[in-house]
Amino acid sequence: MRKLLLTFGLAMAGLLALPAQAQNFAKPEDAIRYRQSAYVLMGNHMGRINGQLKADKPDLAAIQRSAAIIEFAAGLPGEGFVPGSDKGGLVPTRAKPEVFTDPKVREIGGKLREEVTKLNAVAKGGDIAAIRAQFGETGKTCKSCHDNYRKD
Amino acid sequence: MRKLLLTFGLAMAGLLALPAQAQNFAKPEDAIRYRQSAYVLMGNHMGRINGQLKADKPDLAAIQRSAAIIEFAAGLPGEGFVPGSDKGGLVPTRAKPEVFTDPKVREIGGKLREEVTKLNAVAKGGDIAAIRAQFGETGKTCKSCHDNYRKD
Repeated sequence: MRKLLLTFGLAMAGLLALPAQAQNFAKPEDAIRYRQSAYVLMGNHMGRINGQLKADKPDLAAIQRSAAIIEFAAGLPGEGFVPGSDKGGLVPTRAKPEVFTDPKVREIGGKLREEVTKLNAVAKGGDIAAIRAQFGETGKTCKSCHDNYRKD
Repeated sequence: MRKLLLTFGLAMAGLLALPAQAQNFAKPEDAIRYRQSAYVLMGNHMGRINGQLKADKPDLAAIQRSAAIIEFAAGLPGEGFVPGSDKGGLVPTRAKPEVFTDPKVREIGGKLREEVTKLNAVAKGGDIAAIRAQFGETGKTCKSCHDNYRKD
């Protein structure tokens, strides 16, 4: 029960925080485009790191640049999930309605930011095996949200 | 003549550099989406700064966050202009064909990166009048490319 109340409280805190964010987007489509833009950059650079990790001689500088971009971009999309942006008119969105109501989404968002911060740190460290392991963890976190909160 | 040769040389250097970038995008659409994503983030945050500069009490922290995001994002779109990405199939692009051939585009790109670096620096400084002036200069540079190299 205490956990339920805490979860409810966090969800409410999230909802109360949203109207302030909404002013950053004139239309729901703008919010959808904004969050999708951050994901496009993250997805592209996850793909680049994946390509490097499969190469005979991974380009460490390229991995490091991509990891820094991923960490930066991961801080952005959250505020794009404003109320009313579950449908975008001219801009299609694959976000399921639960994204806007399920407090677990915020948890996954927090975990993602932790994982990309670690990814950027191990990339700077330069140990390819460590980068490979942390890249896998990061990818799992991306997938956990895609599998549950994104339409096919 | 020397200037012409230099310009030609720079343009060729640009073209020679492009194939290496192309491998970061599986399809022309991916390159278009990538550069457009960076521009969406920049445009949104230019709009936020504009809104703050019109407010009675500009929120300096919000301006500083936006200026940092703009500087970061401005480093990204250039490599999205790969050969063949003047037409995007399912992803429309407003880039005029000259974007891929006119060496002046690279010049404007360099100037944009200078202006956004200054914008981020003056934002950190916290002087609203200085931020307003540098915001104007940054906007002019955006516009100089839009006016000449973007379809209506």
